[in-house]
Parts: sequence; structure tokens; C-alpha cells
Amino acid sequence: MSGLFITMEGTDGSGKTTQSELLRDYLEEKGFSVLYTREPGGNQISEKIRDIIIDTKNKKMNPRAEALLYAAARAQLVSEVIIPTLKKGDIVICDRFADSSVAYQGEGRKLGSEVISGLNLFATDGLEPDITFFLKIDPEESIERKKRQESLDRIELEKIYFHKKVFYGYISLAEKFSERIKIIDASADINTIHQNITAYIEELLSRRSF
Amino acid sequence: MSGLFITMEGTDGSGKTTQSELLRDYLEEKGFSVLYTREPGGNQISEKIRDIIIDTKNKKMNPRAEALLYAAARAQLVSEVIIPTLKKGDIVICDRFADSSVAYQGEGRKLGSEVISGLNLFATDGLEPDITFFLKIDPEESIERKKRQESLDRIELEKIYFHKKVFYGYISLAEKFSERIKIIDASADINTIHQNITAYIEELLSRRSF
Repeated sequence: MSGLFITMEGTDGSGKTTQSELLRDYLEEKGFSVLYTREPGGNQISEKIRDIIIDTKNKKMNPRAEALLYAAARAQLVSEVIIPTLKKGDIVICDRFADSSVAYQGEGRKLGSEVISGLNLFATDGLEPDITFFLKIDPEESIERKKRQESLDRIELEKIYFHKKVFYGYISLAEKFSERIKIIDASADINTIHQNITAYIEELLSRRSF
Repeated sequence: MSGLFITMEGTDGSGKTTQSELLRDYLEEKGFSVLYTREPGGNQISEKIRDIIIDTKNKKMNPRAEALLYAAARAQLVSEVIIPTLKKGDIVICDRFADSSVAYQGEGRKLGSEVISGLNLFATDGLEPDITFFLKIDPEESIERKKRQESLDRIELEKIYFHKKVFYGYISLAEKFSERIKIIDASADINTIHQNITAYIEELLSRRSF
């Protein structure tokens, strides 16, 4: 696999989408072919799965069913979109990936990180990001920011206690996989965050014949 | 859990639905409360998942995504419908359950029986049927029978080689779990099959204070 696989992680409202787009533009200006995609979704089948996951009408959704739907959307995205793009030698930036499930379903829903990691392994067939940015911000602040921007979906509507569990799920992931996961202070201004991210990317590119 | 959980398994066109309905009527006439449901589906969320699975437009579906969607539909059905019904002390007859995934995704799609059994364990949270009927019939004959009745869905449209792998998946499950899975000759006439099924049910009821 000759491409580069970058993932953006964080609680809702942490600025993942803004930073993913800035990073895409930055890399495209440097001449790279970049595919920017998101989870759950990013292809026809996974977007249909996304609709079921985030629909606020589906209040009765069982946590295990939720975890399996995220995994299903991931399996489809990996096989249909991410792997073919990496095989071409291009860059993939994915807004959320396997770490989200560990944080949200493993910790937030209390299904257990190890169990969800096992599901991820099946869904991704072993594919891991080359580098992951965890946009770290107090979840109370980030969810407030999200609320000001748009109406919240089924997951975002969870109580603040849920988002705090997710946050600590990310913290322990970042400790466990400190080589891969870079912690970025997402309370800084947009340009500072972008520069902190591109510094890591430049370092990574300099180490790879790309 | 005081109720009784019965599952019907077999290749497409083996007569599961006909026999499930006959068994439901038989048990209701004996005074039992019976819930007859099907997989994938049986509740609002799982029916939406079913639509994605069987849609003939979703030709690009990755086998892992397919397996995870079946597991998601199962998790929702178990938690929302099957467990509450069994807790009331009623009988559940389910047209397909976890064994279907082992036969179809584990063997038919070659994802491996052990891996799919692990997914099932997560989806069902450990719930197993009290008794399972495998309606055994040559898959060439059963898929022909199905074709004469209705237009085929995405799974049913698979080549005969796929249905044969599924069939042998069932055979090995029936050998492995010979206590739970009863092999029923589904090439016999409808009434004979029904009588063979009810004989097992009567024996089971006589052993349980129900």
C-alpha cells in the first residue's frame, strides 16, 4: 500500500471537519491527490447505514446494534474506497475512523474497548491509519460549539456525561497508541491547529519516499 | 428466561416460512402465546437494515459489511423483541437466526465459521435457541422452488455454488451442535415435515415445566 492514510478524531464539535478540509487543501496545493471522506458514510451503501445510525427517530437502538452498524459502514468504506485509493498511491483523509468506535461504543456505551477493537479488526481487515490526529478539547465546550452551528443528530444529542466518557476513551487510546495518535490542542485558533497538524505531516512525508 | 426460543434454518426455498407458520398455529391451538418473527428484520430498525442487505442495487456490498449488517439487525431483534418476549414466558419462533450467518457469511462468503460465531456472540449477547430445525433439502431443488414462487433478492440471486457452500455450512453446524439442531428432511410433503417438527417440540415441552 503506497498511499498515506490520515484520520481525524475527536468529540463532536472539536473541529475535525474544518481541519480535515484545511489539510486536504494544504496537501493538494503541494501536488498530492487527496481523497477526503467521512465516517459513517463515504459511499452509497455506507451513507444508507449512516441514515439509520443518526436518525433521531431510532431512539430504541441497542448499543450493540449501533456498534455493528458503524463497523458495517466502515467495512464498506475500507474495501470500496480507502484501500483502492491507497493502492493508487494517493492520500486519504478520513473524518473519524476505527478509534471513534472504541471511544463512542467501547467507552461511551460501555461495550468495552477490547471488544470494539476486535470488531474494528474484522471490519477493517487489519488496515490502520499511518497517522491520527486527536483534536483535544473539553467536551462541554465542543458540544456547545456544535449546537450553535447546526441541529444535533442522535449521537450528538446524548447527555454531557456520555461525551465525557468518549473524551476519556480518546485520551486512553492516545496514551496506548502514542506513536500513531498525535494529540492536538483544539482549543487554539484554527490556524494554529492547522500548523500543528501540518508540522506532523511534513515530518511524516520527510520520512517516506512518497 | 422462562419462554421457549425456536429457530428455523435452511437454504432459501427450503420451506422455513411455511413450517414456521404451521408450528405457530399448532402451538397457539395448544394455548401458548407465540411470537413469530424473521431475520433480518422483525422490528423497525432491523427492517431498515434488511432493506439495505437484500436490495439488488447494492451489488458492491463487501462480505464483511454484509456480515456486520446481519449481526446489527440480530442485535436489535434480540434486545428489542426476543428477550422481552422470552422473559414474559412466551414462545418465539424465528425464521433464521445466528446459524444463518455462520452458513451464509462464514461458509458461503468464506469469512470463516469461527469469526462469524464470534460476531454472533457479540450480537446476541450469548442468547441461544432452545431448539433449531434445519430443513435439509438439495439446494438446487430449493432455489428452483423459490424461483417459481417469487422474484429473488440479492442473496438468493447468488450462483448455485454459493448455495451449496451454505448447505454444507448447515450440515457441519448440525453435526457440531447435534443436541440443539435437529435435521428435518425437507424434501418430504408439508404435513410430514410438520409432524416431524412437532414430535421434537412435544418431546421438548414434556421435559420442561412450561
